[in-house]
Amino acid sequence: MNRIRVGILGATGTVGQRFVQLLQGHPWFEITALAASSASAGRPYGEICRWKVSAEMPPTVRDMMVEECAPGLDCDLVFSALPGEVAGPIEEDLAAAGYFVSSNAKNHRLDPDVPLLIPEVNPDHIQIISHQRRQRGWERGFIVTSPNCSVTQLVLALKPLLDSFGLSTVMVTTMQAISGAGYPGLPSWDILDNVIPHIGGEEEKVETEPLKLLGRLEGHGFQPAPMAISAQCNRVNTVEGHLEAVSVRLARKAETTNPTVGAVVEALRSFTALPQELDLPSAPRRPIVVREEEDRPQPRYDRDEQGGMAVVVGRVRECPVLDYKFVILGHNTVRGAAGGSILNAELLMAKGYLRNQ
Amino acid sequence: MNRIRVGILGATGTVGQRFVQLLQGHPWFEITALAASSASAGRPYGEICRWKVSAEMPPTVRDMMVEECAPGLDCDLVFSALPGEVAGPIEEDLAAAGYFVSSNAKNHRLDPDVPLLIPEVNPDHIQIISHQRRQRGWERGFIVTSPNCSVTQLVLALKPLLDSFGLSTVMVTTMQAISGAGYPGLPSWDILDNVIPHIGGEEEKVETEPLKLLGRLEGHGFQPAPMAISAQCNRVNTVEGHLEAVSVRLARKAETTNPTVGAVVEALRSFTALPQELDLPSAPRRPIVVREEEDRPQPRYDRDEQGGMAVVVGRVRECPVLDYKFVILGHNTVRGAAGGSILNAELLMAKGYLRNQ
Amino acid sequence: MNRIRVGILGATGTVGQRFVQLLQGHPWFEITALAASSASAGRPYGEICRWKVSAEMPPTVRDMMVEECAPGLDCDLVFSALPGEVAGPIEEDLAAAGYFVSSNAKNHRLDPDVPLLIPEVNPDHIQIISHQRRQRGWERGFIVTSPNCSVTQLVLALKPLLDSFGLSTVMVTTMQAISGAGYPGLPSWDILDNVIPHIGGEEEKVETEPLKLLGRLEGHGFQPAPMAISAQCNRVNTVEGHLEAVSVRLARKAETTNPTVGAVVEALRSFTALPQELDLPSAPRRPIVVREEEDRPQPRYDRDEQGGMAVVVGRVRECPVLDYKFVILGHNTVRGAAGGSILNAELLMAKGYLRNQ
Amino acid sequence: MNRIRVGILGATGTVGQRFVQLLQGHPWFEITALAASSASAGRPYGEICRWKVSAEMPPTVRDMMVEECAPGLDCDLVFSALPGEVAGPIEEDLAAAGYFVSSNAKNHRLDPDVPLLIPEVNPDHIQIISHQRRQRGWERGFIVTSPNCSVTQLVLALKPLLDSFGLSTVMVTTMQAISGAGYPGLPSWDILDNVIPHIGGEEEKVETEPLKLLGRLEGHGFQPAPMAISAQCNRVNTVEGHLEAVSVRLARKAETTNPTVGAVVEALRSFTALPQELDLPSAPRRPIVVREEEDRPQPRYDRDEQGGMAVVVGRVRECPVLDYKFVILGHNTVRGAAGGSILNAELLMAKGYLRNQ
Repeated sequence: MNRIRVGILGATGTVGQRFVQLLQGHPWFEITALAASSASAGRPYGEICRWKVSAEMPPTVRDMMVEECAPGLDCDLVFSALPGEVAGPIEEDLAAAGYFVSSNAKNHRLDPDVPLLIPEVNPDHIQIISHQRRQRGWERGFIVTSPNCSVTQLVLALKPLLDSFGLSTVMVTTMQAISGAGYPGLPSWDILDNVIPHIGGEEEKVETEPLKLLGRLEGHGFQPAPMAISAQCNRVNTVEGHLEAVSVRLARKAETTNPTVGAVVEALRSFTALPQELDLPSAPRRPIVVREEEDRPQPRYDRDEQGGMAVVVGRVRECPVLDYKFVILGHNTVRGAAGGSILNAELLMAKGYLRNQ
Repeated sequence: MNRIRVGILGATGTVGQRFVQLLQGHPWFEITALAASSASAGRPYGEICRWKVSAEMPPTVRDMMVEECAPGLDCDLVFSALPGEVAGPIEEDLAAAGYFVSSNAKNHRLDPDVPLLIPEVNPDHIQIISHQRRQRGWERGFIVTSPNCSVTQLVLALKPLLDSFGLSTVMVTTMQAISGAGYPGLPSWDILDNVIPHIGGEEEKVETEPLKLLGRLEGHGFQPAPMAISAQCNRVNTVEGHLEAVSVRLARKAETTNPTVGAVVEALRSFTALPQELDLPSAPRRPIVVREEEDRPQPRYDRDEQGGMAVVVGRVRECPVLDYKFVILGHNTVRGAAGGSILNAELLMAKGYLRNQ
Repeated sequence: MNRIRVGILGATGTVGQRFVQLLQGHPWFEITALAASSASAGRPYGEICRWKVSAEMPPTVRDMMVEECAPGLDCDLVFSALPGEVAGPIEEDLAAAGYFVSSNAKNHRLDPDVPLLIPEVNPDHIQIISHQRRQRGWERGFIVTSPNCSVTQLVLALKPLLDSFGLSTVMVTTMQAISGAGYPGLPSWDILDNVIPHIGGEEEKVETEPLKLLGRLEGHGFQPAPMAISAQCNRVNTVEGHLEAVSVRLARKAETTNPTVGAVVEALRSFTALPQELDLPSAPRRPIVVREEEDRPQPRYDRDEQGGMAVVVGRVRECPVLDYKFVILGHNTVRGAAGGSILNAELLMAKGYLRNQ
Repeated sequence: MNRIRVGILGATGTVGQRFVQLLQGHPWFEITALAASSASAGRPYGEICRWKVSAEMPPTVRDMMVEECAPGLDCDLVFSALPGEVAGPIEEDLAAAGYFVSSNAKNHRLDPDVPLLIPEVNPDHIQIISHQRRQRGWERGFIVTSPNCSVTQLVLALKPLLDSFGLSTVMVTTMQAISGAGYPGLPSWDILDNVIPHIGGEEEKVETEPLKLLGRLEGHGFQPAPMAISAQCNRVNTVEGHLEAVSVRLARKAETTNPTVGAVVEALRSFTALPQELDLPSAPRRPIVVREEEDRPQPRYDRDEQGGMAVVVGRVRECPVLDYKFVILGHNTVRGAAGGSILNAELLMAKGYLRNQ
């Protein structure tokens, strides 16, 4: 099989680098284009990119010439790691020019004709793509988006609860790693011996995006899930791995017997979904790992679970105010960013959306 | 005025050291006895105590001989910084022998005849002391306790809300400093580039102690405040200062117009109480400081507010699930431990409970 | 006495803020002007400065209008916290216009007619000022400079050794705090769970500046001290306080009996100099504190020694390769930056150089 | 080939855990015994060991019963990760009972009949084993030791310099990771926002062990290498990876043309030795990696080079005092501890020393 030719927008940033790293040796995708701001265009990637996600830049990309983020890129599929300040129109231009766009940027996430996608959660949402094309007059290209990093791991853990028990209320306090702020991102002066109880725009995303993700596609529109979410987002001094303290109220409590802690754990632990069935290359074998220890998950130990593509849940217990509380950990720049967008593209591939017509 | 002669139990631990430090130059209290485990007894404090709370041990205590934690101490008032494993009976023995005991240990906090005390919150609870003496057959001595460090700062911030608007529900996620675990406490291996989502026994304390603190003394018993609290406690890599993300439901919502964010802020900001009226030596001028910045309070900047005796509140805003949410910071080993117990003793002094009969 | 009217160049940076902070309540100096880049000029300090050196900006400067770094500032003395990219010509312009310039910038440190000054080390170097004025045709103004932060604390500790025993060779490895990089400075991503074994330009400064500081003023020129210095500079994850591991060879070894460790300690400990004699307001009572513990000095404990104006030396012992080795700690943004430049100005004041003619 | 049956002494500590981890899937060695203090003996490893070196204990050892550190262990080769307080006699008892002992403990490192071994540096030192057996009356067993973690990486980098240019003087300042202190090891309170300029006994080891390692085996004795070493050892807040700032004087300077920086780099970079020739399972392909960047090696990026078995050298440049200076990084619990001892055993295996007679 010929591999799909892939371009990365914003390839020099930390999420862009994560795309480069995760796509090394990918069985379906092959990097053929790297794009960044016009200031960087025309120079070799190895020269302008300060590689930060591992000890050494993969040799295969070192000599690739960086291009501008515009039609003309030598590829069919583009992954977008662009900052929100510029991502919107660039992604549209590329989709209009026929590129398949799998974006990690926030700009189009809530567009009514764009899927906000987690393959384990709402794979059917990709069906809106035909409507998107029609609406926008695009013949071949389209845009799909992956959620905010704190949202992906939260919604992955909420999905089996919603399916098994219903879900009406979610309270979440995040303790997010510094990598979420990109590079240079957070000054060391701000975070050493400190916690910053604010991340610009984050709480709004956490309170909004899950409603679309857990909602239903009906006809040509998304019906948001009927639930209330309250988020408090904090930056803590960890390198990678967002930790979330969550409490939930289950919806069907009145109708049925309240589930036990054991039933909640079982629902989480046994969860698998379409990516696992399809055996997508980046799909974790078990999307949710439940740990029994009283003090896990922890970022340093658990963020790399199944290559950073699984979320780890722990401390499932009753909540004196809502019904259950627990702790979630996910790798924010793998599952929560580049890895999530790659898995989205793998789903689209498996479903025939990346075909060259 | 002669100063009250004071002893410190558990003087070599970090909370014990904080007592020593905060009592330097105290206008009412004078350290005349230092006590620790029998292994340390009989040797000079300067020799056995690894001083950890500042650059140098105060010269005044260096040559004091450490004694055993037992009757015979040359003092009238004892501050207890003993670990929970041993504090209970030792404190009782001392109270029985006529000592006034102001304890920071957990053991007697929930005893039905012992005040769990924050002078700004429930100063009237000290009236149970006469009942305590009668009950236990103690003529002169008594025990008062200060709450868990995470509780003190939480309850200080809740008190004006309860007074102004009523309070039915509290959800809190803590991000607690390493000093809360004492010394040697938390291994560095466990917390560098990490968060530990569990602190033994802490959530139970946070869900229980506020009910007594915010409850009423009726006759010879405490009526717990009728509210539900859910806590998730985490250890983060900060030196001092516990940060808490809190959401509350106000109780009188139905009866009255829902207060605005401005009214909540005003209730917090304008709060003063008996320690401020009495101008107690360790009382902060303003027990609650409200900051307007979107990213404060922060541990490194705000923990030393008014000598670490005030709590700092920020980010007061509406909560999509409950009514309001906000962030609280307090200095856990000052206001949340030694400083809190000293303020308790100051209240007792001002109210005539430390008189030599 | 009327206080000298003082301006601060680069007032919004972290060293600029340190000047603002340290000059609060200064007995001789009064801030009357704050200057920054033209982008900031014309707006209130409280609006454009992100205050980072303590919990809150002093109220006295909040409403001061920020001005441009150019003649016209309403003051007589200016402290320069400007970055090296721009400091050079601005400082010259101001000196030419009659301002007394006490600079922390690197630009003029090695000018042959500009004093590089540590008041305890080479106070006589200020005599070059008259020559500087003549040379440059300046009637009233002049420039004096304070050394690089790593240099100040090193040279303070070397001075008594040079005086007592002679000094031919210095090897130093620094472990420098993140504050030395300013704000935003070092990205947190770079330093968490890491050490960076390189600080641009730092080793050159450490190998060069001490030669001028410890050299002699002869006629109109400085004779560098005849010694060899080798430096390796590293950034570690501490907030404030540079730690330096130093080995020295003493010069007079052959001629005289080799001093004992005790004699080296005594030379360091007993060191006082002109600022102490003159009782300058910012002078530490003891410029060098020697600690006996085997594991001190440590940044978190010792950086604030005497308000951060003293250096702390520890672990004095024999070196198997050179003669003696020891560890030095200094507060890099107090003694090593703003505080050092203020002490320089105090010396100039005491010596009559700041007189309005 | 049947795999050699291996036991681990001190299996529950962090170095012991590293042995367990690194031996998973080893082609020559198979864990058949785990031993720890008598308090732990008789219980399953999975129950008593708090696994700390990765997310999860390998399932293969979970149910193994922990035994006492004494003859009777079901294995032929033992790796010792015992603390120095107890290692000495235990290792001797086992060797006397016929076990091959590859120890990471300090106790026998300087014994005149025990090899202190780095396979790339002094593989011929294993020839003393026959003498050791004779001396001690051991028929089959013997003891070999691996050096202190700071020493291994230093000596690996010094070896090619000694071989190519001679070496007379070494000055080294270490910045060592917290893992070096074991578990619980360093309290977090001591190291957060701090550096500790002292590690008990470390400087002595760094100044002594290299002399044996770089010395020659002559007849039945080791001739120490004739060089002077001075070490200053510091603990910094990194998880793994010791960084060392080193300056050296080359010995043959007078006789020959002084080598260029390029020649020094080339000597380091081209270094390979017996383990590479023999293709030992744990041998890094390139024992020394030289990086050209001005700010590398860095612990977080470079400690895992070639599975943590290689050392990374950077910033090779001239030293104004000695001849050359550079920075070395090594993984202290892999190459510097368990991995080093395993490589030692692999060398012994390849050389026929582990044969069952």
